[in-house]
Amino acid sequence: MTVLVVGSVALDSVETPFGKVENVLGGSAIYSSLAASLYTQVNLVGVVGGDFSKEHICMLQDRGVDTRGLQVVEEGRTFRWSGRYDYDLNVTETIETQLNVFADFHPDLPRGFERSDLVFLANIDPDLQYEVLSQVKGARLTMMDTMNYWIQGKRESLLRTIKAIDVLTINEAEARMLAGTGSLLTAAKEILRLGPKALIIKKGEYGAAIFADSFYFVAPAYPLEEVRDPTGAGDTFAGGFMGYLDRAGNTTNAAFNKAIVHGTILASFTVEDFSIERLRQVTMAQVESRYQEFKRFTHFEID
Amino acid sequence: MTVLVVGSVALDSVETPFGKVENVLGGSAIYSSLAASLYTQVNLVGVVGGDFSKEHICMLQDRGVDTRGLQVVEEGRTFRWSGRYDYDLNVTETIETQLNVFADFHPDLPRGFERSDLVFLANIDPDLQYEVLSQVKGARLTMMDTMNYWIQGKRESLLRTIKAIDVLTINEAEARMLAGTGSLLTAAKEILRLGPKALIIKKGEYGAAIFADSFYFVAPAYPLEEVRDPTGAGDTFAGGFMGYLDRAGNTTNAAFNKAIVHGTILASFTVEDFSIERLRQVTMAQVESRYQEFKRFTHFEID
Repeated sequence: MTVLVVGSVALDSVETPFGKVENVLGGSAIYSSLAASLYTQVNLVGVVGGDFSKEHICMLQDRGVDTRGLQVVEEGRTFRWSGRYDYDLNVTETIETQLNVFADFHPDLPRGFERSDLVFLANIDPDLQYEVLSQVKGARLTMMDTMNYWIQGKRESLLRTIKAIDVLTINEAEARMLAGTGSLLTAAKEILRLGPKALIIKKGEYGAAIFADSFYFVAPAYPLEEVRDPTGAGDTFAGGFMGYLDRAGNTTNAAFNKAIVHGTILASFTVEDFSIERLRQVTMAQVESRYQEFKRFTHFEID
Repeated sequence: MTVLVVGSVALDSVETPFGKVENVLGGSAIYSSLAASLYTQVNLVGVVGGDFSKEHICMLQDRGVDTRGLQVVEEGRTFRWSGRYDYDLNVTETIETQLNVFADFHPDLPRGFERSDLVFLANIDPDLQYEVLSQVKGARLTMMDTMNYWIQGKRESLLRTIKAIDVLTINEAEARMLAGTGSLLTAAKEILRLGPKALIIKKGEYGAAIFADSFYFVAPAYPLEEVRDPTGAGDTFAGGFMGYLDRAGNTTNAAFNKAIVHGTILASFTVEDFSIERLRQVTMAQVESRYQEFKRFTHFEID
């Protein structure tokens, strides 16, 4: 059982009302790999520059992540992102994006990676996502993330990739933008017509919902008193979701439901601290404990 | 089994992207009475002017609502509210409020009303809410709503009333304003210290959550493709919640959970049309059907 994760590896600088960090480990592929690695074997594909600390790579390997697909461009610099959040942590303000080595990135799967059971294509250029899909063989489930930038700027490429994957995961605003409608349920129906078997809509502090043909499930977020940094929550969610599904060994609706809850719980750890500080220390016992709590505070009986 | 409802009875003029209505039946006491009357006997207390159609009163009586507490000031005009919603139906823009007969309203309980089993004090002046509380005897559960206007303008009176009731129901922004903190969970804990046994936070299209000492439950909203007019959703929720609890005959945590879901489902009907058009036609079979669906799309197993 393996999950292939393709996405960005970044050095982030983030400021929130609760603190500030500079050049810390980040990127969609990092958050989702770490989350998934709690459940299963992860094959990571991405790119970094010569400035990327070897310690980060060792940390990933300690988690059992296969880093052979992490290209190191010695003469280049790692992708950098800096952003800020105000008290409304649902709104991200990007201060600067430096693509650096990411500008010329082409995902190249090391031998064996093409046979990964599950594939998660984090938010990168939809043409690159499509390149990966063309390389993988016999995956049980493929999932992709995307963002407003591609929805507006590369719609045709994006639609081609969406048509080719099993699950699309985006946030509420992106779903409305992609479908061109205000009603989230109508948007979900429109998006399912584009080809994916299922759509996951991430709602930040309100949780996440999954839509498929005659199937719907919604989970709230795990309630937290202190959210220090929301960066990486969506990618952590995706990693937890895919990791759980891979370990479960099936993709029934019941497994999807549980995977959504696992993704939501993993994300609740990520946002409790900056960068991957909390996520890297989470144990499965802590995840299970929140899962039990989650069951208690969402369960109700039929009369 | 009876629920006492005290609140506003209004003639509303509402505009949304989906239509426009003028001088239609509205007001917190109307929405919550109609919702609760699906489950139990309702005792209504409010005030209207001579311009208030007798047909509205007949309609309430047809639903089994005891309208003896509805004062009619023949020489006055009914409370009027006009508002507008844009595509983001979570944001209400009040155009005009005419208090009219509501300005001099003092709730006066007809004989027998003081023995109601459950009491819902909809959003009115906290001093008036306190007057009602002083008149009722032996209620199993009292609940109140309030709004930013009273939180900012009549804080001392409000705190006195909050301390005297069992359940406070407010929306997210009001909870943050009342507690003076951005974290909803921290706000909930602060508010519980003010005296109520439980706090319900309404989250509009994201559902509702209930907080009490070592008890938490959260329900999403029932997903709708078309929301035509959100007016009255919160009051309908409160009416459904109280109506269900009264019929259930107990206030255990399990009953609270089910009551939250019932309230949420009732509100989903209200917002499907303007004024009370949809709510007045809802049958218990339709409520039960959505309840079953709700169970399916929120249920997940423990591993």
